[in-house]
Amino acid sequence: MSFDAIDVIRTKRDGGRLSAEQIRWVIDAYTRGVVPDEQVSALLMAVFFRGMAPEELAVWTQAMIDSGERKDLSSLGRPTADKHSTGGVGDKTTLPLAPLVAACGVAVPQLSGRGLGHTGGTLDKLESIPGWRADVHDEAYLAQLREVGAVICAAGNDLAPADKKLYALRDVTGTVESIPLIASSIMSKKIAEGADALVLDVKTGSGAFMKAPDASRELARTMVGLGEAAGVHTVALVTAMDRPLGRAAGNAVEVAESVEVLAGGGPADVVELTLALAREMLAGVGRGDVDPAEVLRNGRAMDVWRRMVTAQGGDPDAPLPQPAEKHVVTAPATGTLTRLDAYALGVAAWRLGAGRARKEDPVSAAAGVIWAAGVGEQVVTGQPLLELHTDDPDRIPRALEALEGAVGVDTGEQPLPLLLDRITA
Amino acid sequence: MSFDAIDVIRTKRDGGRLSAEQIRWVIDAYTRGVVPDEQVSALLMAVFFRGMAPEELAVWTQAMIDSGERKDLSSLGRPTADKHSTGGVGDKTTLPLAPLVAACGVAVPQLSGRGLGHTGGTLDKLESIPGWRADVHDEAYLAQLREVGAVICAAGNDLAPADKKLYALRDVTGTVESIPLIASSIMSKKIAEGADALVLDVKTGSGAFMKAPDASRELARTMVGLGEAAGVHTVALVTAMDRPLGRAAGNAVEVAESVEVLAGGGPADVVELTLALAREMLAGVGRGDVDPAEVLRNGRAMDVWRRMVTAQGGDPDAPLPQPAEKHVVTAPATGTLTRLDAYALGVAAWRLGAGRARKEDPVSAAAGVIWAAGVGEQVVTGQPLLELHTDDPDRIPRALEALEGAVGVDTGEQPLPLLLDRITA
Repeated sequence: MSFDAIDVIRTKRDGGRLSAEQIRWVIDAYTRGVVPDEQVSALLMAVFFRGMAPEELAVWTQAMIDSGERKDLSSLGRPTADKHSTGGVGDKTTLPLAPLVAACGVAVPQLSGRGLGHTGGTLDKLESIPGWRADVHDEAYLAQLREVGAVICAAGNDLAPADKKLYALRDVTGTVESIPLIASSIMSKKIAEGADALVLDVKTGSGAFMKAPDASRELARTMVGLGEAAGVHTVALVTAMDRPLGRAAGNAVEVAESVEVLAGGGPADVVELTLALAREMLAGVGRGDVDPAEVLRNGRAMDVWRRMVTAQGGDPDAPLPQPAEKHVVTAPATGTLTRLDAYALGVAAWRLGAGRARKEDPVSAAAGVIWAAGVGEQVVTGQPLLELHTDDPDRIPRALEALEGAVGVDTGEQPLPLLLDRITA
Repeated sequence: MSFDAIDVIRTKRDGGRLSAEQIRWVIDAYTRGVVPDEQVSALLMAVFFRGMAPEELAVWTQAMIDSGERKDLSSLGRPTADKHSTGGVGDKTTLPLAPLVAACGVAVPQLSGRGLGHTGGTLDKLESIPGWRADVHDEAYLAQLREVGAVICAAGNDLAPADKKLYALRDVTGTVESIPLIASSIMSKKIAEGADALVLDVKTGSGAFMKAPDASRELARTMVGLGEAAGVHTVALVTAMDRPLGRAAGNAVEVAESVEVLAGGGPADVVELTLALAREMLAGVGRGDVDPAEVLRNGRAMDVWRRMVTAQGGDPDAPLPQPAEKHVVTAPATGTLTRLDAYALGVAAWRLGAGRARKEDPVSAAAGVIWAAGVGEQVVTGQPLLELHTDDPDRIPRALEALEGAVGVDTGEQPLPLLLDRITA
């Protein structure tokens, strides 16, 4: 069946509803290069203004999935669960979470991405482990899921190729910030991954993609609806990203913190969030009886972590890269730390070399920021508060610029509770 | 100066105002191919939703003019005035109007277009005159304006090239129907043409681009503002296009009707509108004292017409092309003709071969529709009402389809007055 792209654009532009046939046609024709970029960017901008009805969005997302292959993990003979985070600063939870849930008997097929802008990327972080490789191909992927129980690797080109093309187009046409487009982009890939259950960590606050809790809740509800419509048990947690998570943002520094968590220590907020996400993943596949806190304590999660890193060529015992330069920022006053702005810290880590401005840029494994106190804790004037890590001292001044006004002591601001909402179908 | 196209798109998308520098940069960079189609189509769709402030639109239009050359007609030593119609069915007024105003001592540099869809194109109509050529190049153009006083020809590539590119993009991206984009497209070309005064005939009703009088008035006000901002004395008449103008729609049939008007006859509505437009053009250059009705009566307008046609290779005495087939539609009832739908008649003429579906299609000189009575006149059941002309009898059934419901007798509907509004700065 063939349609006229202009009709599709005008229908959406004028607030009408696209038919299932129109949506399937336009996504397929765009993926095949039959409908050109300039028509789809106009359609995406119309979607930005008009939104999509739940029925339209479910078909749109399914069409994106159908542009590639939905993986079948039934041969594993084990329940499967995955997590997706909308991205934040210092958000390393995937690293302890995947081995933890695998150690609880649920396979975790985690196809991850790289960082862009001020938010970090899981693969960039793991690549700071000497020898570790992000590319795990089809048979090795299934074998690792079967033998180790968890894999964190790069998505192949067969996973929702429509999304790859649409995302690249949205990126250059000012059509990224649209809830239906964000939701369909994330969920098409996550549903195609083939897991039985999914937990979504939807960040909210300055360091998140969605700054306002209401917008984050709407995104969460939209994605939960899409997951359920596709037969994947889906729950979303809306979590705070006004301040960064844990005590480190960067690459190697986040791996180190993750290993601390797996060893039974680590910052309380990372542990709390990791356990909350693990409980949702377990409950999602009917394993709510397993206590992940116990599995973290007894070292079984750490065992899986070591096997997972080793399976992908990494050496879990190798020392992590160290920065050429460290720069300390001291606390500006004595009192309670009330503000540690996630966005500012993310930009600082990015400028120190931890992130990339363009997809093809390399990242520095050693670059990042660590902080000695979290929001709500006491600090004393002049104590070391932030430590900036970089390979290139010339990067420090611009990182410090990003941090101007990022730290607040005793200003009376109320930080968001870590866990704001739990949203189910 | 260089800007980021994504910033420009996002600013407009979020309801902000574009700076003059941003507008000049994006129009120039797009014309030069530095900013790609997919970014500009997203920007155009954002403009569709957000509109443009008058200051933004004036800069946008000026930037389009500056993509080419604004003609200087001062060497003519004579005032210059031009007319633009937003397009309708049976609207042949340019044909008698240009020689009429020239005969009144005001030069008329009329750069015209071809028809697309159900509305006719002035050049298509004139090309039904044996030998007549639409291409008049720079020196010949000025010479004809000097010697004959009027030229109706195709615009060159140096006239607002940004508009050519933007219009082609809007056409395929569902961003045609935007008042600021329509207004800037029309006015960039008309201002660049270099006339001292401009009258705009903004059509309203089923056969017009803008169906609703309010939207037509808004378009008229917007264009008048742009003309005045560029130093061109501009007046707009909002005129009825719920029924077609005159008694013929097509190519040769409209030339024949125009010649009747120049000979002192012709349908009353065509004469009325031609004189109203002529008076505005004359008043716009301070020649309000000249009575165009007298110039029409005394044959001087016809003299200029003949010289104008001859100057462009045409033979004003040659018989016009005749159709291979004529098909008569009779009046369905006895009473007052209250409805003769302009859009339906335009589509019928188009399907008979008078118009084109794609820019590269040829048109038939002989195809069209003529009607024996206009709205408000008495008809008798069974009398010949419409005469369909075509070179290809196979086209008649689909033309008849378009005419279903187009004719109404005694239904009590009130037609629009021909002249709805006069809008000045």
